[in-house]
Amino acid sequence: MSGKSKNNNPKSNPKGPMPIKVIKRLPIYYRYLFDLMERRVERISSGKLGEKLDLTSSQIRQDLSYLGSFGQRGYGYNVYELHDEIGKILGINRNMQMVLIGGGNLGKAIANYPKFSQRGFLIKAIFDRDLDLIGEKINGVPIYNVNKLAAYLDNFEIDIGIIATPPEAAEEMAQILINNGIKGIWNFAPVTFDIRNDVLIENVHISESLFTLSCRIKEKYEN
Amino acid sequence: MSGKSKNNNPKSNPKGPMPIKVIKRLPIYYRYLFDLMERRVERISSGKLGEKLDLTSSQIRQDLSYLGSFGQRGYGYNVYELHDEIGKILGINRNMQMVLIGGGNLGKAIANYPKFSQRGFLIKAIFDRDLDLIGEKINGVPIYNVNKLAAYLDNFEIDIGIIATPPEAAEEMAQILINNGIKGIWNFAPVTFDIRNDVLIENVHISESLFTLSCRIKEKYEN
Repeated sequence: MSGKSKNNNPKSNPKGPMPIKVIKRLPIYYRYLFDLMERRVERISSGKLGEKLDLTSSQIRQDLSYLGSFGQRGYGYNVYELHDEIGKILGINRNMQMVLIGGGNLGKAIANYPKFSQRGFLIKAIFDRDLDLIGEKINGVPIYNVNKLAAYLDNFEIDIGIIATPPEAAEEMAQILINNGIKGIWNFAPVTFDIRNDVLIENVHISESLFTLSCRIKEKYEN
Repeated sequence: MSGKSKNNNPKSNPKGPMPIKVIKRLPIYYRYLFDLMERRVERISSGKLGEKLDLTSSQIRQDLSYLGSFGQRGYGYNVYELHDEIGKILGINRNMQMVLIGGGNLGKAIANYPKFSQRGFLIKAIFDRDLDLIGEKINGVPIYNVNKLAAYLDNFEIDIGIIATPPEAAEEMAQILINNGIKGIWNFAPVTFDIRNDVLIENVHISESLFTLSCRIKEKYEN
């Protein structure tokens, strides 16, 4: 990794396993650096980056030190290099194979989102139990009967299972994914899984951020 | 607030303004307590709660002390009381009026999500620029031309604007919402707003959690 950076200073070596807090911030950097690229910004200081992302500049320097040495004191970070390097660490453009369970509105929104496939996140098959949907396609991807899910996972190498089902079905689907060797679950159903397994799970609990917003509005306007 | 709790110990008074970190955790507690209620669990200790939510029990006691005194040493928290109190703080069942901008797949998923209206988050109108959608309804809510948005906000008291548009349109929509006195923006577009205004914004950047998952898979399976 550090061999590709211009600065071959020994300090530029990665510092070992990245803490989960840093991992969770990388996508935030990644997205914002992309924004900057679109605006043709070539360099950014840790101070400016921090201001925009609500972090201190020392936190940013600390986080990015896990990537090797990109910043030069007084010059800031090269936006393109940093975006590229974070992308590699995030496994972007590396072809993650995914299945999507649930072909309703949310499933449709996910399957139609163009940025995922552009970045190598490929939905290979969709599963649903609705007979009206089975046999149809979303964004060119076929919808199969959910009772074929285990057999499909047995035949194809899939990294990530996306759960976009109603909450009642989510735990059962997660169990099928786990039993068939999935590496990670990207869960949109509003449930906390009661699963004893070390499979990696990322939850998108959409309503949580609405409740947070509502709480902040209440704090600001009613106290 | 503390008058409603059984324990009238003076220590049970709220400790002043709630830090944003605590505010962000309240919806997580809220959802998990709801899960427990569905499973008829009546009490839970801070230790168990912490285990499930990846927090230490002292963090949990600290967070919940902002609500007044609910836990009793050795007895844990009353699930129903705690859920109810957090719901009040989150402004749930208090009727938040919302408009939704963008009636595509994601907008449809949001407008059809039954739990929001059940909890008092009401979508009053939907706006889009697609002439095929204007005049239609989603879940009973009419879709208007987006050029009517400013006038609508002028006539009705709306708390929250939901942005579910493509990224190119998001900043312009945010500006219209802000110019017309919105209190909070719930943004699903993958952009970082370049807006100098103290309006409250909560972002749901869906792809960030996919990238986090991908990074964790890479760390676990490829190192």
